[in-house]
Amino acid sequence: MKLRMGMIGGGEGSMIGPVHRMAARLDGLAELVCGTFSSDPDISLSTGTSEGLPSSRIYTDWKEMIRSEGALPAEVRPDFISIVTPNHLHYGPAKMALEAGFHVICDKPLCMSVAEALDLYETVERTGRLFCLTHNYTGYPMVKRAREMVHAGDIGRVRKVIVEYLQGWLSTPVEMTGNRQAAWRSDPSKAGIAGTMADIGTHAFNLAEYITGDEVVALSADLHSTLQGRKLDDDGTATLTFAGGIRGTLIASQVATGEENNLSIRIYGEKGGIYWRQMEPNTLTVMWPDAPVQLFRTGNSFTVTGPVVAMHARIPAGHPEGFIEAFANLYRNFCMHIRALEEGLQPSETADYPGIHEGVRGMKFLEAAVASSRNGSLLMTL
Amino acid sequence: MKLRMGMIGGGEGSMIGPVHRMAARLDGLAELVCGTFSSDPDISLSTGTSEGLPSSRIYTDWKEMIRSEGALPAEVRPDFISIVTPNHLHYGPAKMALEAGFHVICDKPLCMSVAEALDLYETVERTGRLFCLTHNYTGYPMVKRAREMVHAGDIGRVRKVIVEYLQGWLSTPVEMTGNRQAAWRSDPSKAGIAGTMADIGTHAFNLAEYITGDEVVALSADLHSTLQGRKLDDDGTATLTFAGGIRGTLIASQVATGEENNLSIRIYGEKGGIYWRQMEPNTLTVMWPDAPVQLFRTGNSFTVTGPVVAMHARIPAGHPEGFIEAFANLYRNFCMHIRALEEGLQPSETADYPGIHEGVRGMKFLEAAVASSRNGSLLMTL
Amino acid sequence: MKLRMGMIGGGEGSMIGPVHRMAARLDGLAELVCGTFSSDPDISLSTGTSEGLPSSRIYTDWKEMIRSEGALPAEVRPDFISIVTPNHLHYGPAKMALEAGFHVICDKPLCMSVAEALDLYETVERTGRLFCLTHNYTGYPMVKRAREMVHAGDIGRVRKVIVEYLQGWLSTPVEMTGNRQAAWRSDPSKAGIAGTMADIGTHAFNLAEYITGDEVVALSADLHSTLQGRKLDDDGTATLTFAGGIRGTLIASQVATGEENNLSIRIYGEKGGIYWRQMEPNTLTVMWPDAPVQLFRTGNSFTVTGPVVAMHARIPAGHPEGFIEAFANLYRNFCMHIRALEEGLQPSETADYPGIHEGVRGMKFLEAAVASSRNGSLLMTL
Amino acid sequence: MKLRMGMIGGGEGSMIGPVHRMAARLDGLAELVCGTFSSDPDISLSTGTSEGLPSSRIYTDWKEMIRSEGALPAEVRPDFISIVTPNHLHYGPAKMALEAGFHVICDKPLCMSVAEALDLYETVERTGRLFCLTHNYTGYPMVKRAREMVHAGDIGRVRKVIVEYLQGWLSTPVEMTGNRQAAWRSDPSKAGIAGTMADIGTHAFNLAEYITGDEVVALSADLHSTLQGRKLDDDGTATLTFAGGIRGTLIASQVATGEENNLSIRIYGEKGGIYWRQMEPNTLTVMWPDAPVQLFRTGNSFTVTGPVVAMHARIPAGHPEGFIEAFANLYRNFCMHIRALEEGLQPSETADYPGIHEGVRGMKFLEAAVASSRNGSLLMTL
Repeated sequence: MKLRMGMIGGGEGSMIGPVHRMAARLDGLAELVCGTFSSDPDISLSTGTSEGLPSSRIYTDWKEMIRSEGALPAEVRPDFISIVTPNHLHYGPAKMALEAGFHVICDKPLCMSVAEALDLYETVERTGRLFCLTHNYTGYPMVKRAREMVHAGDIGRVRKVIVEYLQGWLSTPVEMTGNRQAAWRSDPSKAGIAGTMADIGTHAFNLAEYITGDEVVALSADLHSTLQGRKLDDDGTATLTFAGGIRGTLIASQVATGEENNLSIRIYGEKGGIYWRQMEPNTLTVMWPDAPVQLFRTGNSFTVTGPVVAMHARIPAGHPEGFIEAFANLYRNFCMHIRALEEGLQPSETADYPGIHEGVRGMKFLEAAVASSRNGSLLMTL
Repeated sequence: MKLRMGMIGGGEGSMIGPVHRMAARLDGLAELVCGTFSSDPDISLSTGTSEGLPSSRIYTDWKEMIRSEGALPAEVRPDFISIVTPNHLHYGPAKMALEAGFHVICDKPLCMSVAEALDLYETVERTGRLFCLTHNYTGYPMVKRAREMVHAGDIGRVRKVIVEYLQGWLSTPVEMTGNRQAAWRSDPSKAGIAGTMADIGTHAFNLAEYITGDEVVALSADLHSTLQGRKLDDDGTATLTFAGGIRGTLIASQVATGEENNLSIRIYGEKGGIYWRQMEPNTLTVMWPDAPVQLFRTGNSFTVTGPVVAMHARIPAGHPEGFIEAFANLYRNFCMHIRALEEGLQPSETADYPGIHEGVRGMKFLEAAVASSRNGSLLMTL
Repeated sequence: MKLRMGMIGGGEGSMIGPVHRMAARLDGLAELVCGTFSSDPDISLSTGTSEGLPSSRIYTDWKEMIRSEGALPAEVRPDFISIVTPNHLHYGPAKMALEAGFHVICDKPLCMSVAEALDLYETVERTGRLFCLTHNYTGYPMVKRAREMVHAGDIGRVRKVIVEYLQGWLSTPVEMTGNRQAAWRSDPSKAGIAGTMADIGTHAFNLAEYITGDEVVALSADLHSTLQGRKLDDDGTATLTFAGGIRGTLIASQVATGEENNLSIRIYGEKGGIYWRQMEPNTLTVMWPDAPVQLFRTGNSFTVTGPVVAMHARIPAGHPEGFIEAFANLYRNFCMHIRALEEGLQPSETADYPGIHEGVRGMKFLEAAVASSRNGSLLMTL
Repeated sequence: MKLRMGMIGGGEGSMIGPVHRMAARLDGLAELVCGTFSSDPDISLSTGTSEGLPSSRIYTDWKEMIRSEGALPAEVRPDFISIVTPNHLHYGPAKMALEAGFHVICDKPLCMSVAEALDLYETVERTGRLFCLTHNYTGYPMVKRAREMVHAGDIGRVRKVIVEYLQGWLSTPVEMTGNRQAAWRSDPSKAGIAGTMADIGTHAFNLAEYITGDEVVALSADLHSTLQGRKLDDDGTATLTFAGGIRGTLIASQVATGEENNLSIRIYGEKGGIYWRQMEPNTLTVMWPDAPVQLFRTGNSFTVTGPVVAMHARIPAGHPEGFIEAFANLYRNFCMHIRALEEGLQPSETADYPGIHEGVRGMKFLEAAVASSRNGSLLMTL
């Protein structure tokens, strides 16, 4: 009934592992059946056991897990593998899992380079397996409503985008003082060529492309390591030019002291403007030059907000839905797509989720941003 | 590993059934094993099947389910029964389930009368089974923080409470036009002696008693059926006197046209004031006469908000948690209590949840409010 | 050119005196020419001098001022008298000024009793002089827009009003420790039969009647002196019944610790709901059951908000207008009415301001509320 | 008593002229005595007459006004001249007025070029006359509080500034369809080398320098004319480097469709962050990594917000003060400085206002921004 899920990463101490598990559980569509939660046997065993797995399906080597689980009968082995490791451990597991016939859901950014990304892209194409990249902010009902309004031309041709992602948790050198999340994110061997821009900047970039439905063709970026001795950027700004002529500004910072998880986007078209902010995600503000501001709300007035919102909300208006629900929308759409594939059906067009294409886009953005910043904010094309 | 849950009610078309199931699933502590989702065999079967249950454990008669499941071996039969039926079907199933040795989690209000409530209270005491009543708004981290601040004396002795619960969905006679949720809520044979005051007024009442830690001893109420022909109240106000001298105003309406699910509470003490609003639940506003307003936030600064918030939040600050997460906190605390009981351990004091006492309080409130309103807002004691 | 204004009260230490003077100055329509700012000669002289008045037109006895100024030639003597004294000094000066041929603008509440109010009403009628009572919150553009929407039937027949006025400054016994504003307001010989209900409750009452265009016909009230030894109420609630069947709840408190000046009103009709809050006065929130929430904004989109807003706003949208501007709207409309009267013209219908009728209404409200509260919240008619 | 003010510009149809007059009147410190409101005799006469001026002191040629008024006796002639013309008519009148011995208060931006600015700077120095440039947003109490907190080191060494000024009123070609405000602002002969960046970008720039107390030393800018045929920029972004190492992002747009007057600033230091937004100007949000967010409020708790706020607020907390009041704070501080100068006293340090130095800064910013943008966002020094 439920799809079977294997997991790589997400052992105790992980922030995102439990989120993936809650997202998978929420709608009852997927069930964890095996995992390599850590290369440390104690951690992997303890995490797996607390998740109710038998020790026979708890691993410490993801290669072994993919091999062993791939050899199980079709009705037992996982339908898909969820990869929630640090960035340097996305490419290898994803590629091997795809080749072994598993669908894959993977945390962002996709991998460590455009080359890896293109290789994964080819692998997905070749194997015909499904791939979901958890740019989870696209799962919010009001983000989907925003995209729908832009596509319908409600605000006219889009001219300008301002997207910001501000956090403050790296405003002191916590990577030196035992914060595991900070440690790997500021270590180039694990995070890749970028720090903050990879960790949260790619979310902002993806959100802008998702809602506008347009693609960035050139950018100029300025990245900084604000704290002395930090090896990767913790703050940066990029100006974006889209194929359709939109001009954008992207700001990402993890040294915006006091900020929690302040992702917001503003989109201005010829006829109107849109504002959405992740920390109050159930409201979409739409501004008009000659009419009152409108607030669209998750769950409310489906006669107004329409079927796309309805299918991504779970409870009536005014009962706030949050981060986990939005994350779960990706899992749900991904699971529904797997089922449709298995049953030979056409997947729902509105049950979209970010995939391998978005992963390649993110890596191109990162390489361009880093190159631009290293060259005096030189204009780079993607 | 997971506790086993049976469910009564919650078939297709139910609003609260899916919420209970999501809440039970979110933390992976409970698993649905059987259910009487409807007395209509088609609905019950279809709901149970889509939840992955074998047909052998899908029932159409809750009495039969309690009998059959109670006869199963200990390692198979449910640990607890979740009751999510309309009000008139709380007392019977709850009583029988308790007598059969099951723990019970039940939607609010507890039942149809104080007499039923006291009988259930006695049954819980006698059987030693655990009982949770889903006054789910107490599950929000910031509500728990508010309670903690009040109890610690941070705002001084409390003087005044204003609690409001405003919805607009009954501002037209939807009970006449096929809205099932509205139909039973406005039918005295199913809802009981009160409509809006039972459906949402009891939540407001519970929230006020929960945060203040004080109990209402007298009230004066004014209930109305705004729409012609509606048999139960759809709007009302009550003034409350608490044992400790607090004065309160409680407003509940389902004809506040345009309101979604606007529950809010303000508490004023000798030294400061507190404001919380369910529709933006991750912020707790604390006002001082001689210092800046403070905003406490879910998940943030656990050094500041402390362990009670930490244990009821799942993700870092700025990643909004919502209605389902708060609901799941009740399930989690209830499941943890069951486990502690089974293992002979002391339950966590901070992992509280509303129980049979709160159920009795709610029924006393309802009977007093209805009697007061019928007698020209006469002062009634609880 | 400018109208000439005399002032009674408002010497140094007064809170509201300077507000009246700023409101009179803002639009350049009135100019202070004489004043009895205090019965203390030093204070009156010092205040008048700092306002640029010659000592010959600075008085310490308001009776003398009215006599002397009334005897001046028409082109010198004041056009109107502004009365900004404590409550017990409204009736006498207002009556004498009207009889002497002056128009009068007076702070609220109108006087000390319904009997005084009716006598002033008769005096206004008889003398044909104009009278403005500074229920200044009606001067906000968005309040006028709300009234206009209700009158146009935009939200359908009104069913329910919730009006709240919450302050915290009397949460400690500041009247004992030298706070002059608190001292007279809590002294029955100066404030009258009510404290908080007179000081701010009458504003809330007036706002409800102003926006709905309906009149309260009965009420039930519960007033308290929260602080031991305080002679007048500092907190209270009233339930209101309007002639047109609207039910209302009015809450006024000055012991809502931490609140600044939190006046808000919510109005629910058959088709929609309205929310306005004084502390963010430039936004009017309008809620619909089947359409997005709308935010109307001061100054914006006059094609949308219309001429009534346009004539009461001074600057384009997004340049916030505040308390003084709203207060000045009363002065402006009053001055324009005086001019129209002098020129034999019809005054603008939309340039309304609260007058003697509203003063009588406020006193009836106060007497009914106090009587109801003294008799166990007995239902009283107005 | 009151200072005497002459005005150049501000005839009927002007937006900013009436604002200056209201600001001058609000506190009763200045009185309009003469004016050249327009070069059109009808407009100038009509405006002056409605302001109560005798026709003898209403001019159509500002040179004549400065000559004639300068020849009047000291006790009659203006103390200062207020210049509220389009940009190209700032330099000439300001210079001549200063040379004639008048103090000058002038709208922004200062003039048309750095060369003109430096010449005015020299003129001010040489004549010893006072000069105020109406960067009015610095007049808000909460902006002054922000500056004070930054200077006191409350948020630690500042690292990052994001300042945004978003309007939407130029999102259609209104300059073609009779909008006078738009017409001169988009005409290089009247506005100068920049459009939006001059009109509102200089405000944002000034605000950033004012609050941080630091100066921009280099920038990279990207300006656009979004609408075809528009001769000056209507949208732009600049990245800023401050002398003290702060990195800044400045965004200014007048094609942000639907935005009213959305100026905001965020400042992040090592220890905390600050957020202020002009459209809700009475709240200053201060964020901490390890303590609750604090909201400082205009007028409230002067024991907390201190004397600088107290002297720039007029009414108690919760009575909102707005744009005109902030503008009036500049007039008040300027008038108090003139008086102090005349009386040989030391002016108050906290009664600051923007002056000729800020005017030069603004012109340097504009020339650098335009040059950078014309050269592929080349880094330019100021």
